[in-house]
Amino acid sequence: MIINMNEQATKEQIQHVIDRVKEAGYQAHITQGEERTIVAAVGSGGRRHELEALAAAAGVAGVVAISDPFKLVSRQAKPQRTVVNVGGVRIGDGSLVVIAGPCSVESREQLLSTAREVKDAGAHLLRGGAYKPRTSPYEFQGLGVEALRLLREVREEFGLPVVTEVMSTEDVDVICEHVDMLQVGARNMQNFALLRRLAVIDKPVLLKRGPSASVKEWLLAAEYLLAGGNRNVVLCERGIKTFETETRNTLDLASAALAREMSHLPVIVDPSHGTGRRSLIAPLSRAAAALGADGLLVEVHPCPERALSDGPQSLDFDGFRHLMKSLAEPMRSPVLVPQHA
Amino acid sequence: MIINMNEQATKEQIQHVIDRVKEAGYQAHITQGEERTIVAAVGSGGRRHELEALAAAAGVAGVVAISDPFKLVSRQAKPQRTVVNVGGVRIGDGSLVVIAGPCSVESREQLLSTAREVKDAGAHLLRGGAYKPRTSPYEFQGLGVEALRLLREVREEFGLPVVTEVMSTEDVDVICEHVDMLQVGARNMQNFALLRRLAVIDKPVLLKRGPSASVKEWLLAAEYLLAGGNRNVVLCERGIKTFETETRNTLDLASAALAREMSHLPVIVDPSHGTGRRSLIAPLSRAAAALGADGLLVEVHPCPERALSDGPQSLDFDGFRHLMKSLAEPMRSPVLVPQHA
Amino acid sequence: MIINMNEQATKEQIQHVIDRVKEAGYQAHITQGEERTIVAAVGSGGRRHELEALAAAAGVAGVVAISDPFKLVSRQAKPQRTVVNVGGVRIGDGSLVVIAGPCSVESREQLLSTAREVKDAGAHLLRGGAYKPRTSPYEFQGLGVEALRLLREVREEFGLPVVTEVMSTEDVDVICEHVDMLQVGARNMQNFALLRRLAVIDKPVLLKRGPSASVKEWLLAAEYLLAGGNRNVVLCERGIKTFETETRNTLDLASAALAREMSHLPVIVDPSHGTGRRSLIAPLSRAAAALGADGLLVEVHPCPERALSDGPQSLDFDGFRHLMKSLAEPMRSPVLVPQHA
Amino acid sequence: MIINMNEQATKEQIQHVIDRVKEAGYQAHITQGEERTIVAAVGSGGRRHELEALAAAAGVAGVVAISDPFKLVSRQAKPQRTVVNVGGVRIGDGSLVVIAGPCSVESREQLLSTAREVKDAGAHLLRGGAYKPRTSPYEFQGLGVEALRLLREVREEFGLPVVTEVMSTEDVDVICEHVDMLQVGARNMQNFALLRRLAVIDKPVLLKRGPSASVKEWLLAAEYLLAGGNRNVVLCERGIKTFETETRNTLDLASAALAREMSHLPVIVDPSHGTGRRSLIAPLSRAAAALGADGLLVEVHPCPERALSDGPQSLDFDGFRHLMKSLAEPMRSPVLVPQHA
Repeated sequence: MIINMNEQATKEQIQHVIDRVKEAGYQAHITQGEERTIVAAVGSGGRRHELEALAAAAGVAGVVAISDPFKLVSRQAKPQRTVVNVGGVRIGDGSLVVIAGPCSVESREQLLSTAREVKDAGAHLLRGGAYKPRTSPYEFQGLGVEALRLLREVREEFGLPVVTEVMSTEDVDVICEHVDMLQVGARNMQNFALLRRLAVIDKPVLLKRGPSASVKEWLLAAEYLLAGGNRNVVLCERGIKTFETETRNTLDLASAALAREMSHLPVIVDPSHGTGRRSLIAPLSRAAAALGADGLLVEVHPCPERALSDGPQSLDFDGFRHLMKSLAEPMRSPVLVPQHA
Repeated sequence: MIINMNEQATKEQIQHVIDRVKEAGYQAHITQGEERTIVAAVGSGGRRHELEALAAAAGVAGVVAISDPFKLVSRQAKPQRTVVNVGGVRIGDGSLVVIAGPCSVESREQLLSTAREVKDAGAHLLRGGAYKPRTSPYEFQGLGVEALRLLREVREEFGLPVVTEVMSTEDVDVICEHVDMLQVGARNMQNFALLRRLAVIDKPVLLKRGPSASVKEWLLAAEYLLAGGNRNVVLCERGIKTFETETRNTLDLASAALAREMSHLPVIVDPSHGTGRRSLIAPLSRAAAALGADGLLVEVHPCPERALSDGPQSLDFDGFRHLMKSLAEPMRSPVLVPQHA
Repeated sequence: MIINMNEQATKEQIQHVIDRVKEAGYQAHITQGEERTIVAAVGSGGRRHELEALAAAAGVAGVVAISDPFKLVSRQAKPQRTVVNVGGVRIGDGSLVVIAGPCSVESREQLLSTAREVKDAGAHLLRGGAYKPRTSPYEFQGLGVEALRLLREVREEFGLPVVTEVMSTEDVDVICEHVDMLQVGARNMQNFALLRRLAVIDKPVLLKRGPSASVKEWLLAAEYLLAGGNRNVVLCERGIKTFETETRNTLDLASAALAREMSHLPVIVDPSHGTGRRSLIAPLSRAAAALGADGLLVEVHPCPERALSDGPQSLDFDGFRHLMKSLAEPMRSPVLVPQHA
Repeated sequence: MIINMNEQATKEQIQHVIDRVKEAGYQAHITQGEERTIVAAVGSGGRRHELEALAAAAGVAGVVAISDPFKLVSRQAKPQRTVVNVGGVRIGDGSLVVIAGPCSVESREQLLSTAREVKDAGAHLLRGGAYKPRTSPYEFQGLGVEALRLLREVREEFGLPVVTEVMSTEDVDVICEHVDMLQVGARNMQNFALLRRLAVIDKPVLLKRGPSASVKEWLLAAEYLLAGGNRNVVLCERGIKTFETETRNTLDLASAALAREMSHLPVIVDPSHGTGRRSLIAPLSRAAAALGADGLLVEVHPCPERALSDGPQSLDFDGFRHLMKSLAEPMRSPVLVPQHA
């Protein structure tokens, strides 16, 4: 940490900061500039928050963190990439894992037919919402335990591991009994009570990025899971909030790449929520694959215009088959034949 | 709802949309433009989500909502402003209510001294965190039940009603036993499980706006509370995420004004979190008062540079006294003597 | 500047950075931490950009600026506030200056009637667009020189100094002949060719903040004007781009307050563009006045629904009179009678 | 356009709106809902801005545009993709064009060595700044005409067409004499005076997206060029402003894909400015190629740590060779072998 003094800081104020740095368990190195003084807190065993609080001390212009606040999620902590096993499917081993299925589980027929189709088209995991976070209380809130039972049934019938969202600590046990992976939705990324609860289960967690979470905040949310004991965490980029109104969110592929650079955890991409616009799912899925994403999360529904949620961004069965085919095709060769040659 | 057809939409596609509008319980009014056809769904008893899902139907360019999705929070629903009673203090009656206290309850001495000071300076309610949402798992997480006991003790000693944050459905009962008002933090604004639980308690709720929540999303979160039976809701603007890096957040006073225009619920403003910068608290508190905000939420600590959380944005006792004095002074008269006269 | 080395940086890399710091004209102070080394560049006569470029050197994790890049606009450079004289009206002397008028000059009658009304209601300056920056090429682009002539005529008839926007270096001379103050629009805030041209005129400049400019970028745009020789600069906050869709922009009063804290230049607020919503103009004008803004810029039109631009956010004459009255009224007394007393 | 009346709108107000719609040259179709009335303006020859201004009329809740404001840039207007010829290099023909070179032209040696290297590695066009838009007036502003001469010299020596940025209408002629393509920088995307000037030159234009421009605003800026007569326009996505601080900007590949869907113009991507972080250039370049981008714009410098601008985001020669190699390699096969099979 660097404590940056004001130009007008007095000797007493500087000495006070030096004393507080030592009190917090660090050494203080002073750099006397022409305009201002800088105090660097050196060491690793001290109490970081006491340094941060010095931003409130008299004569201090600001406190700048030099090192990252991560302990377990960073590449420095663990250079080799993590592979997460979800009911036998490995995420993070270099292949592209496709998770597909309806936004909400709506009925036995809907789920069965979708599972059959997406498996047949090559998907590795099935998704389906039992508990739905909805912006309005008057929207469909999910079938709850009934949906969980359907997910388990389908999982057994098709051998397709399943992922579903958990919204509350109270539902954790029952969800763990029925599915292979628990998803934390974007709006709960910083629901720390939920994160602490999921840190002590023995199922993997899919952690969606909040719609305005920085990459650091996202990784620190994952740090809650790892620090609590659950190392089976997959990150999922699903779009951020910006000023753009043509798309539901702005899919932030740059942050997916950055998260893979900063952390050893697998990173997958959700182009369905990330754009809210069906026509963009295929090009952005290909882009995600090209930058090294470990997987895709795609919404598929037998009849999107009758979906109880997220219809406009869901693919129908044909659309999903086309997507899978387009991913399997050799990508447009970016052969760089100099045209001027 | 307006269903806006593509320019290339076929007759069959248009007819299909008309059929689906009727199926959803609405009348369909068709406007045949030169370039495209528009289908308006008319009526109020239908199933709104079925219209929204038509965005996924063939030939549809988009679905535009004409009416707001609110039932209970809007001014249309209830033109007279709501007054929320918190332990005898009325929020929303036209006066400016000041809620002050430390970010976290750290010790008996800290809380007692702060309560004495802020009450003496004119504050109406005491705030103090028992359960702390922290971006990093390695930061101070709050004293929990011990803090709740201290809050109750202080409340009885000083007659100052208290507010504290609730982070989990599991803590709701114990918090209700100890305090007068429960706060939902910004990161939990769309924690719908928590909102549903708080809808059935008999204590008022302070609902902070999420850092990237639109005003509509914020009001819909409040709608969860009202729809579930709790009408004692106070909204709190506390800053949004933007590209600006000089301040912790961007305090969005325009949205505070807009929320008061769109809803009958009281709206207060938190300039401490809203800016993260002590020097801006006074001018923005005055601005909030001038635009009609129903109250302020201000962090005060006996020694900000030793605070376990949020030191840089906390006022010390002197700073709080100055703030209260500046709020009581007649504001700069914006008398408009034409200088050119 | 702090050059923060990687944890893996070699001795040679560190020495290279030290050499480069000296080469750039600074002294190098080294702090050897447990995990990493920090090199501080000390001094004031060196070449700052050479330090910034070291972010690209091997072994460097990042370069952090400690001091601000301003020379002339900052409060440190000039503690007393600047007062800008616009045709006899002083902006920045502690009073609230009101600039009012139509978005675009549309006709002689429109401008005359508006000028008469706003002067009568107490406005100090008249605004009116001659050259209009329009998002679409098919929208009304302004009357150009004809509008300038009307502005000069009105100025002479009513003794009301006038402000108009300049969009191109080529128009600077003719505009200077006709008006008292030149406005740089938000979209041109970083049109540096234009700023350099306006730095050498002898008229004051109204510099609007870009819709996604940080306060630092805004002040650096003003620095172009001051560094080039024009010290008569007024800053104008007019709303930033955010995810909110209920308003045209998000009026950022916090940044108006921050700009006044960081700079000695006067800061005014434009609630018309800042919100795009007529009903919010009065409450936000009052808020701007309360936080210490030096003035307001308000759009007024005889018949907003017939305006060639910005009708929805323009006040009609009655609306403007109400605004001025509401600004002159004593503000809601935030008297803090403890309700619990 | 849909004019959406208030629930409280009177018959007179509705009639007034109907009259105004007709006056503006449209037919008015009325839909009488249970709660409110909707007036649709039908036809294509009317004055669109008069409908927009009705948002200011009494009794009107809002005006919603149904059709896009584009005439020339949209896919509807011209379904086949545009190919732009830049000194013999075709952009938009399905291949991936690479434009590379230094941020600023700094010296003859710097430009010559870079041109030789990037051509040898397979780049198709050379970039280099002669006039530099810099946030601070104290930063390097470019070599101006001297740089233009160097660009022309290099172009002749290597047969590599060159692109450079234009910042002012006054420089257009001299730049046109020296280079093959003129770039409009992000900060000038809505410098309409400059756009109008560039609409009448016979050189192609590279139009960068503004840092907070929506896709519609970007396309409307291009519409200025096409409407004025210049159809040789290439769009360039270069990152938007968000809350993220780990990267200089947030590269918005989703909008690049959307712009290609909405418009027939070629779209290229600039991962250098888009991220400001060298390590992200390769993965995001591959992603851009995979989603169908028509080209890349990459900054290359012989010694980034000595660059006068943008060093941290510039590749050195080795880095650029690696990038080109990685683009030529077959992309990671997203073969979807069901692992559970």
